[in-house]
Amino acid sequence: MRTQVAIIGAGPAGLMLSHLLHLQGIESVVLETRSRQAVESTIRAGVLEQGTVDLLNQTGLGERMRREGAQHQGIRLAFGGQQHRIDLTELTDRAITVYAQHEVLKDMIAARQAAQAQLYFEVEQVSLQALDSERPQVRYRHAGEQRQLSCDFVIGCDGFHGISRAAMPGGLRQDYTRIYPFGWFGILVEAPPSSDELIYARHARGFALISTRSAGVQRMYFQCDPAENVAQWSDDRIWNELETRLENHDGWSLKKGRIFQKNVVGMRSFVTEPMRCKRLLLAGDAAHIVPPTGAKGLNLAMADVCLLSQALEEFYLRKSWRRLDSYSDDALKRVWRAEHFSWWMTNMLHTHPDGSPFQQRLQLSELQYTVKSRSAMTVLAENYVGSPFQMS
Amino acid sequence: MRTQVAIIGAGPAGLMLSHLLHLQGIESVVLETRSRQAVESTIRAGVLEQGTVDLLNQTGLGERMRREGAQHQGIRLAFGGQQHRIDLTELTDRAITVYAQHEVLKDMIAARQAAQAQLYFEVEQVSLQALDSERPQVRYRHAGEQRQLSCDFVIGCDGFHGISRAAMPGGLRQDYTRIYPFGWFGILVEAPPSSDELIYARHARGFALISTRSAGVQRMYFQCDPAENVAQWSDDRIWNELETRLENHDGWSLKKGRIFQKNVVGMRSFVTEPMRCKRLLLAGDAAHIVPPTGAKGLNLAMADVCLLSQALEEFYLRKSWRRLDSYSDDALKRVWRAEHFSWWMTNMLHTHPDGSPFQQRLQLSELQYTVKSRSAMTVLAENYVGSPFQMS
Repeated sequence: MRTQVAIIGAGPAGLMLSHLLHLQGIESVVLETRSRQAVESTIRAGVLEQGTVDLLNQTGLGERMRREGAQHQGIRLAFGGQQHRIDLTELTDRAITVYAQHEVLKDMIAARQAAQAQLYFEVEQVSLQALDSERPQVRYRHAGEQRQLSCDFVIGCDGFHGISRAAMPGGLRQDYTRIYPFGWFGILVEAPPSSDELIYARHARGFALISTRSAGVQRMYFQCDPAENVAQWSDDRIWNELETRLENHDGWSLKKGRIFQKNVVGMRSFVTEPMRCKRLLLAGDAAHIVPPTGAKGLNLAMADVCLLSQALEEFYLRKSWRRLDSYSDDALKRVWRAEHFSWWMTNMLHTHPDGSPFQQRLQLSELQYTVKSRSAMTVLAENYVGSPFQMS
Repeated sequence: MRTQVAIIGAGPAGLMLSHLLHLQGIESVVLETRSRQAVESTIRAGVLEQGTVDLLNQTGLGERMRREGAQHQGIRLAFGGQQHRIDLTELTDRAITVYAQHEVLKDMIAARQAAQAQLYFEVEQVSLQALDSERPQVRYRHAGEQRQLSCDFVIGCDGFHGISRAAMPGGLRQDYTRIYPFGWFGILVEAPPSSDELIYARHARGFALISTRSAGVQRMYFQCDPAENVAQWSDDRIWNELETRLENHDGWSLKKGRIFQKNVVGMRSFVTEPMRCKRLLLAGDAAHIVPPTGAKGLNLAMADVCLLSQALEEFYLRKSWRRLDSYSDDALKRVWRAEHFSWWMTNMLHTHPDGSPFQQRLQLSELQYTVKSRSAMTVLAENYVGSPFQMS
């Protein structure tokens, strides 16, 4: 089998890239080890930057998002018994949209299948071959048969644990990592929204986040030990912890309901450089991970594949390697901005197990400044709504 | 002997406070263990915030500063082979003035002596007594005689190593500390200025700062081990290190000359809370230390004594304890802002002996953002020129 672009992974990066290439008349094949049902039901992020929303709208994927997603023009920072609003739209002229990642994925898969895309789920034993040559090969098994795909480029969109990054030559690659000494305990709740905007709370017991999914389903998190056992957390204990950390700011109160999912996620910052070697290119989580505090993961993947689709278009239309050659540097500018922002938000809002009293006071001083100085508020807001997809 | 306010220490805080009290008709006695000559020749900071400049001018101490000081409307951040200007005045409508701390001290001492102030140098064996009572006592020896000073208030302006902070009840006091794993190697050079504005440089080998004293004397620093031995640094070795860290940005070059002083300073962040217990109040370095990166030490002392003189005026004019009661909270708001800013500038510009490659990349990303985003530039600028002396 022959295609122009082999895409490994049908997450947000892989699906969006195949969609963008399709709109440009470039052929691709997407290979995914999970089932469609598994892809469409994995609960992940839910905050879309304006740039992501624009991209989905401009490429015909925004119809359900416009109907079911909720535009938020601000977020709240809560600490010291008070909530403070950061007016994203007044500060930056942009907004965010709350629409869950798995809903984005459903929309992408539906669009790709309607266009008769070559999108294969439940493939096995994927391996990348001849990456040094002009004609890389992808071998895999599908529906009980061994297959071989010959292509011009392999795009690794297979996430942090995928095979693509590992296929980059070790001597070339430099990895940058930070593992945080805490995780997020996440719950899904059947309840009405407790707030019309996301609340990021800093408390002496740790961070908490009140987010939303829909009119009837809410997403809440609180900072925990990364090895925390969900079985030890009764619903009552969870509600007590959340209520303590949210402190009933100014009469605000938490709306409770049936908890139907509990999970713990670890927190990591990770970047690999470069994001391209010859005809193998990485995008999304395969190349970089951010802690969830800044809500950047999905949005970074969208920015990567935007650059990538433009670079591939220039290659196929004008036989030019220029933008492929600069892809890694171009993408990494935005990646490092988001990495820094995510690290900063995380540090400002979480308690550190080994944090000194001095660090705790700095944290409070920074929060107080961030909700009072217009320039500091703008720094938070312009990063939260997202940098331009192409940073100079 | 009897006075209204006993001031321990004739540094910037103590001298300025006695000057401000004098202007308000409140009597004070200043006791200093060092000689006048030692006080006037100790080389310290040299960057005055606009608020400090305004205070000196408004209280009649600004005449020589206006003549000999240099107003700077910007600073430079240097990294990656380039210099980037932060236009303080365009961003904040304010400026800084470069005028050495020991010159400020000379002006203050001259003014206090012209007003026949009770300002005693070379006192010995200072001890504070009866701090719990309505009539605290200060005992000391001066000119071979044992003396006793009875007062309404004792103000500790005797620096980090002074006796005043130690006289605060231990159970009440909480200290916050961070000791940095590096120091500054400072030199004084006979040479013309290398730059019309301060240059803060970040290099893989460590931080460097090009500052100035006058048309003929320059101050330069580079990050070093806090235990560095100046005897091991020949002039050639120093110039090589500075030139390497400054990288000849865009054709800029360092102007060399005779080095006539070399010293190493450690770097520390420190805050004690509260800054008042009954009739003992602390101001300046006695209560807080910042690393020199943000140029905040002297300016914080000026803000403290401004608050303090107003609080004492309210006490003597209206018998009100209100502003004395709130002095610690009022001062600490600004102290923590400056502590956070100084910590942030220090971290953004210094290499950390145990810093990971991830941290180094974050540092570069933050610098790139800080010289590109107007809001991030404004955050740096508004903190560098200084918060209002009375923060809400």
